[in-house]
Amino acid sequence: MRQIKIGILGLGVVGSGTVRILQENADEIAQRVGARLVIKKIAVRDLGKPRAVTVDRALLTDNPLAVIDDPEIDILAELIGGVEPAHEYVLRAIHGGKNIVTANKEMMAKAGHDLMEAAGERRRDFFFEGSVAGGIPIIAPLKEALAGNRVREVMGIVNGTTNYILTKMSAEGAAFEDVLREAQEHGYAEADPTSDVDGWDAQYKIAILSSIAFNSQVKVEDVATQGIRHIQARDIEVARELGYRIKLLAVGQQEDDGRAMQVRVHPALLPLSHPLASVDDVFNAVLVRGDAVGEVMFYGRGAGSLPTGSAVVGDLVATSRNILSDATGRIGCTCFEAKRMLPPEAVETKFYTRMHTADRPKVLASIANVFGDFDVSIESVVQKAVTDDDAEIVWVTHKVPQSSLRGALDVIGRLPVVRSVNNWIRVEE
Amino acid sequence: MRQIKIGILGLGVVGSGTVRILQENADEIAQRVGARLVIKKIAVRDLGKPRAVTVDRALLTDNPLAVIDDPEIDILAELIGGVEPAHEYVLRAIHGGKNIVTANKEMMAKAGHDLMEAAGERRRDFFFEGSVAGGIPIIAPLKEALAGNRVREVMGIVNGTTNYILTKMSAEGAAFEDVLREAQEHGYAEADPTSDVDGWDAQYKIAILSSIAFNSQVKVEDVATQGIRHIQARDIEVARELGYRIKLLAVGQQEDDGRAMQVRVHPALLPLSHPLASVDDVFNAVLVRGDAVGEVMFYGRGAGSLPTGSAVVGDLVATSRNILSDATGRIGCTCFEAKRMLPPEAVETKFYTRMHTADRPKVLASIANVFGDFDVSIESVVQKAVTDDDAEIVWVTHKVPQSSLRGALDVIGRLPVVRSVNNWIRVEE
Repeated sequence: MRQIKIGILGLGVVGSGTVRILQENADEIAQRVGARLVIKKIAVRDLGKPRAVTVDRALLTDNPLAVIDDPEIDILAELIGGVEPAHEYVLRAIHGGKNIVTANKEMMAKAGHDLMEAAGERRRDFFFEGSVAGGIPIIAPLKEALAGNRVREVMGIVNGTTNYILTKMSAEGAAFEDVLREAQEHGYAEADPTSDVDGWDAQYKIAILSSIAFNSQVKVEDVATQGIRHIQARDIEVARELGYRIKLLAVGQQEDDGRAMQVRVHPALLPLSHPLASVDDVFNAVLVRGDAVGEVMFYGRGAGSLPTGSAVVGDLVATSRNILSDATGRIGCTCFEAKRMLPPEAVETKFYTRMHTADRPKVLASIANVFGDFDVSIESVVQKAVTDDDAEIVWVTHKVPQSSLRGALDVIGRLPVVRSVNNWIRVEE
Repeated sequence: MRQIKIGILGLGVVGSGTVRILQENADEIAQRVGARLVIKKIAVRDLGKPRAVTVDRALLTDNPLAVIDDPEIDILAELIGGVEPAHEYVLRAIHGGKNIVTANKEMMAKAGHDLMEAAGERRRDFFFEGSVAGGIPIIAPLKEALAGNRVREVMGIVNGTTNYILTKMSAEGAAFEDVLREAQEHGYAEADPTSDVDGWDAQYKIAILSSIAFNSQVKVEDVATQGIRHIQARDIEVARELGYRIKLLAVGQQEDDGRAMQVRVHPALLPLSHPLASVDDVFNAVLVRGDAVGEVMFYGRGAGSLPTGSAVVGDLVATSRNILSDATGRIGCTCFEAKRMLPPEAVETKFYTRMHTADRPKVLASIANVFGDFDVSIESVVQKAVTDDDAEIVWVTHKVPQSSLRGALDVIGRLPVVRSVNNWIRVEE
């Protein structure tokens, strides 16, 4: 049986999962592909470090170039993460004629376009299913099974850490800081949680997904990004009473004429009937809305050694089949358009906003008047007395541009009867 | 730009959706593929019949052979359904060197294996994404993105009509017959609903999915199949009180050693936390459990003109890319094993059973004793007085073989204090 030789950079979380799958399911994979996928070399930083998987020591090297430049290696799996030196390694491997599989979301979001073009010029495969939503197949379906669709929207819960935190806050009525600390103790959140809780991880992923869905490169700096630090337990509680869940959403939308798109990351209220509303804990899900398929959703584990390894091995299988059919480069970069990027201010959604006011006659009317001045019409309003002279008022607006809501809230915040505008959050449908 | 010539058999629900997508999104599809997908001919039964899509009359023919035998046609899309003459047409087209795309679940379940082998021998593509779960990508992900996994279980709600009926019964407390009649009036159920409500449609689909997931051909006659006619509004109500939903499930499972499998269709109680429990109305979803990926679910519209057309066009795109790369036959039939099929009696699950009894002391104990005699241990039991001398008892067992439950219920049904055993239904996890 023919052998496909694989070189791996990195034997961390994803690398060890990938190696374990290739070892444990070697026979099934060989039968499915019609060739044996053989690990030729693995580059690691520290040869002596204990690993989560048993690997023949002879395969290990601490010299990445020994993998990248090995002429026998057909596919390079880049599993070290971060932009550099991963990007430099991958580019060198492409120039050397290698096919590439990667799970590196940051590199793909920031430098993926050029890498894919370089691979395409040499008719080499370049796959990155593991870079978004772990083991959930979403990139391949967007590129092929859904290729008949004009995608209107791609919307996802793509960060497991923040989804875990929001789920816990919702279940326990606990504050963000307390749940974050607990998540860090349990290993569900990193010591430096910035990339997750401030939305950067989700930003990389929605930039990748939107680029594919809309056939136009999305630059990460154009993705308006807001994390979950400002979400209070009270927001989650009130949202729940109104029939909503709060999730960190990554959203890409395309205008009906296909000329402009809008991509953003922010917390949002989702009605309970929304397919993403019941995606809890560390699970991820991506909802695609296409003109032909309607709504289709992909759900599963968005991170972890074996789930992400599953995506990497799926890409290795696809590449191997292309090698066997002499068809690498079969699907290239599909960013053949350059669509205009709309600012988030232009996007109309419903909004939720919560404020504390004096509890006396006409307060509600005076605030409603300001909303009216800014053409912000109100879907629902709930007022509750908190103390004798303190009321909490929660508003859900109809669809309005963010700029109108912000304008109204600026004025409302300065009304003498308003003590504080505590939060405002988009409501998605 | 190069043209890929497509011939279509059938311009019904799926055919007209396919044609509409190819027309409306022609430019995007051409850019994604790098070639223009051109409809060369469409065979219909009645040239004069009004169609849901505007088609140049010159493309239509009432002679299927004029499409099948046209040497310029690269891909034949078989969209007429049923085993014959579809099977005969497809076989002839394969022998003539055509690539095949089909949405025909019955043909694939009953004769797909031989057709795929014939296509494989000639290194032609044979795709059938539209045959299961409409527009939801599930066959391609099983064959490629999830190919690193040993799939333990594939479980789905794959029939929209029965899911609509069960959802309505649940929402309205209505009887099966009444909801079926209403569904027929609204066009959600066929005049002859047998294929849907008796589970045959789901049977075809799970045979196809299991064959791919387990790499072993599943014959439809080996799929134990039970429909939803016997589900009573009271079962749904009681299940809901206990925290379950009742769904028509199609299930394929593989033994841990990979040597045997079990495939079945039947109603089942699902706990509310189950990913499939909240799949309502006409929506479909397929849950895959793999050793690496864990749980992954695919959700969307399982039928309809444009959703199924989306799947067909996705397959046409995949085939076109293979034609352009000279790589048709890239993925062949993956049924390279011949696994043993276990009877459903061998499968252990929890069971729900509901019965009416005399309402007097020791009735519950006497029934519980019989369960004990058959080694059926009980997870929960709820007894309710219905009238002065009539009680309803609902049992949920621990995991037991179906044969043990049936044995116990046979004896219980003959106890003088038992008026009727109203139903028994599997509980899935």
